[in-house]
Amino acid sequence: MTETVTVREVGLRDGLQMVGAVLDTDRKIEWCRREAAAGVAAIEATSFVPPKLLPQFADAGLVAHAALRIEGLETSALVPNLKGAQRAIDAGLRKIDFVLSASNEHNLRNVRRTTDASLDDFRQIVASRNDGGRRDVALGAGVATAFGCTIEGRVAPARVLAIVEALLEAGADAITIADTVGYANPAQVRALLRDVLALAGSRPVTCHFHDTRGLGLANVCAALEAGVRAFDASLAGLGGCPFAPHATGNIDTEDCVFLLESMGFDTGIDIEQLLALRRDVETWLPGEAFAGAIARAGLPKHFSRAASRVSPVFHEGIL
Amino acid sequence: MTETVTVREVGLRDGLQMVGAVLDTDRKIEWCRREAAAGVAAIEATSFVPPKLLPQFADAGLVAHAALRIEGLETSALVPNLKGAQRAIDAGLRKIDFVLSASNEHNLRNVRRTTDASLDDFRQIVASRNDGGRRDVALGAGVATAFGCTIEGRVAPARVLAIVEALLEAGADAITIADTVGYANPAQVRALLRDVLALAGSRPVTCHFHDTRGLGLANVCAALEAGVRAFDASLAGLGGCPFAPHATGNIDTEDCVFLLESMGFDTGIDIEQLLALRRDVETWLPGEAFAGAIARAGLPKHFSRAASRVSPVFHEGIL
Repeated sequence: MTETVTVREVGLRDGLQMVGAVLDTDRKIEWCRREAAAGVAAIEATSFVPPKLLPQFADAGLVAHAALRIEGLETSALVPNLKGAQRAIDAGLRKIDFVLSASNEHNLRNVRRTTDASLDDFRQIVASRNDGGRRDVALGAGVATAFGCTIEGRVAPARVLAIVEALLEAGADAITIADTVGYANPAQVRALLRDVLALAGSRPVTCHFHDTRGLGLANVCAALEAGVRAFDASLAGLGGCPFAPHATGNIDTEDCVFLLESMGFDTGIDIEQLLALRRDVETWLPGEAFAGAIARAGLPKHFSRAASRVSPVFHEGIL
Repeated sequence: MTETVTVREVGLRDGLQMVGAVLDTDRKIEWCRREAAAGVAAIEATSFVPPKLLPQFADAGLVAHAALRIEGLETSALVPNLKGAQRAIDAGLRKIDFVLSASNEHNLRNVRRTTDASLDDFRQIVASRNDGGRRDVALGAGVATAFGCTIEGRVAPARVLAIVEALLEAGADAITIADTVGYANPAQVRALLRDVLALAGSRPVTCHFHDTRGLGLANVCAALEAGVRAFDASLAGLGGCPFAPHATGNIDTEDCVFLLESMGFDTGIDIEQLLALRRDVETWLPGEAFAGAIARAGLPKHFSRAASRVSPVFHEGIL
């Protein structure tokens, strides 16, 4: 049996957040639809931030509404605060993700409050959801700058773990650990994620890596070894963080899927269909920079999906 | 104690092999000198191929002569055949590397003979060195397309291991395993390199990865786990193989060193000095494509070399 790994597409949120022009709502919906058709099972479709702050996401409700109707797709959205969470729940989402930064300075620049204040915000969001009788909505919590910060530099693993513990205690249904600025290395990832998984127990843990310094996919491998089986990735490597200089570049979805499938993990995703979608997205976003190696070099000759393989040659090497 | 990993610079050979213009001999020598000044301990300085075939290396003897005089630098060169090996030994080299392809088709296109015929060539080279009383010259043997081939597709690990065994039996003093076309994945690397290391015993094993499909540094990590402690890399990611379509891009030296140092391995190399050299090399090779993430994004804030660290935070994660 081939082991399954989930790749969540975040290009529509983390990617479009960094893009100059506002992408047409219909194209966002087509993007979601074609990700699902390619076999992508989870998508972060939008962000419920104040539209005045990020006009790109003024159509958050519409995109969420349409994405929720796509069969086989788990649609989630980012929420920066209580108001965003309420809007997301009202839009019908069953999975929403709150994010705070382990780096206090990064959190201050990102949402103008301390990490502790953001923790309180998360507790309020949980209380509001529970008071509203909406425990059917899963509340994920993400820890940004978990491996370092362009402003503070080092971020102590003990601090990240304390924040994860506080989020779990507050009622987080899932945890995301993010290398927002591309500082993580595989040794650090393996060590931290082992501890995070131990804290999280049965609650799912996702890793969100950026490829800013070239180590994105090496970090995916390290997280796999620690036991992580869910990753965020962005089509064509779009994305970054507007408050972290040079932090462009989520790991590329096509390359991440290629890595996983070639290692023998079943992602359920057809890379060729992703590449066809990518070619269209490139035309929708003229002037943007796109990353990714598979789009340039093509798949290896005789490449086949992990789930379709029978040769023991390709199974023996799985972790 | 921090563990040591050797990064051998191959930009002057694998990189320049793919470059349009012939680089001035003095610049090649400056390149070698500044690599050594940055702390690089091993360099593949040139290739003893027929000058008519690759005019870039018509100055092989001159470059080798100068590189051999640089203190602290182990200079090696590639040799494709007996004549090249004799020229390299005459030039004073104490380490020469012969390469054949595990893929028979790739070997035919590359050197116009079968892999078996190339194995015979290697035996002849060993015999010629021994007959000449030059056992002080170390004869390395590299296996190209060890993880797959753009012409043949899959290459069986059993075939690679049989070739490694034959090379060792023939008298190879060191083995290099090369992903010439960028097909390798970390699971495959870990499995194959464990077996290669077991065969090689005390004879050193180097991995030579290309980043064609984005997995170069992830493959370095997998090889580290298998026990490999020596890697080839090319400044600015220059390089490829003229007979393998799209196979541009050795792993980038600066990024590889960043990976290793951030994981806590001591390479002895100063990344800032590499970056300064890279900036000059870029001006020497106008019109060429350069890769690498660290050159674009810069080192993380508070980054320090592995050997200079005292904080246990950065040691706990070592493999």
